[in-house]
Amino acid sequence: MIKYPGGKKSYKKPDSFALTSRRGMSLEEDINKTNDYYLFMDIGVVHKKPTPIQIVNVDYPSRNKAKITEAYFRQASTTDYQGVYKSIALDFEAKETKNKTLFPLAALHQHQLDHLRAVNKHGAVAFLIIRFNTLDETYLIFAKDFLQYIDTSEQRSLPIKWIRDVGYLVESTFKKPCDYLSIIEDVCIKEKV
Amino acid sequence: MIKYPGGKKSYKKPDSFALTSRRGMSLEEDINKTNDYYLFMDIGVVHKKPTPIQIVNVDYPSRNKAKITEAYFRQASTTDYQGVYKSIALDFEAKETKNKTLFPLAALHQHQLDHLRAVNKHGAVAFLIIRFNTLDETYLIFAKDFLQYIDTSEQRSLPIKWIRDVGYLVESTFKKPCDYLSIIEDVCIKEKV
Repeated sequence: MIKYPGGKKSYKKPDSFALTSRRGMSLEEDINKTNDYYLFMDIGVVHKKPTPIQIVNVDYPSRNKAKITEAYFRQASTTDYQGVYKSIALDFEAKETKNKTLFPLAALHQHQLDHLRAVNKHGAVAFLIIRFNTLDETYLIFAKDFLQYIDTSEQRSLPIKWIRDVGYLVESTFKKPCDYLSIIEDVCIKEKV
Repeated sequence: MIKYPGGKKSYKKPDSFALTSRRGMSLEEDINKTNDYYLFMDIGVVHKKPTPIQIVNVDYPSRNKAKITEAYFRQASTTDYQGVYKSIALDFEAKETKNKTLFPLAALHQHQLDHLRAVNKHGAVAFLIIRFNTLDETYLIFAKDFLQYIDTSEQRSLPIKWIRDVGYLVESTFKKPCDYLSIIEDVCIKEKV
């Protein structure tokens, strides 16, 4: 950190920044860009669900245009992403944290955990994508693994050590800044054969 | 139709109404109620996606409450329903029509057809649920069937005769007013064995 006169601070880029192509994009942007690539290249079909909104009032200023003038955010009852890849139903949630040592489970709502547990039970491949922003590391953790951890541990967080051990590091390229389907391919397709 | 003085009209219920348990509920309400039952009974997990909305302006009248004061409906780029049943990825769209002889394909957006084609190709079980309100008949039509029809026919509609031939009549009970998973079970699970 270099201090400048006048209290301005200069942010020193982590070295890994030079190696990544993401350049400050959010995890959501990275996943959306990757999903666009998967769709365009006909690799798989995964979409982010729209944010659920409670609409209270709608105006019709012209015949064809409805303008929502009062609405509120509702809590999502499911995860953010769903799709299909080689006949596998995919269902996952993506989260970022600035924490360097653990992922706090409070970042997930109980109904999201319930949903991941339910779809996992019914045969979807359910998982979390967690990005540690400060470490610049992104992991895919399968629901079967972290649900078991949650059920047997007293801790209300996933330690980075456990994540590095059980999870899969997600690779980032320019075209696929969050290439989670490569992991699904390796773990769920290749290992099954 | 009985005419009353003062221009009031009395609506005569169709006879079939007495036989059904739906009692004027919309197809969407029927599917949501059925999905709630599937979830509660741990049969499968299917959810309706939220309506996509473009948010333009948000007020914060209090610290915890965000009020959306300007927003617009966006066109959905996918289908309305997604889920998982016995490891099958499900993806479908539901439509009602008052037409008695055909389902007009104009009721489906091109990107919805493209989406159904894509997920069908990647191994999801994709389908349409079409309710003919006047006939009080609801059909499940698999994407592989109607996509083939669309690709080989010049018609811009699905005739009821063709639907009755190729589609599956969806049964309605009080607890499962649109029991489409029974059809998935019969066609995709039992017939596979």
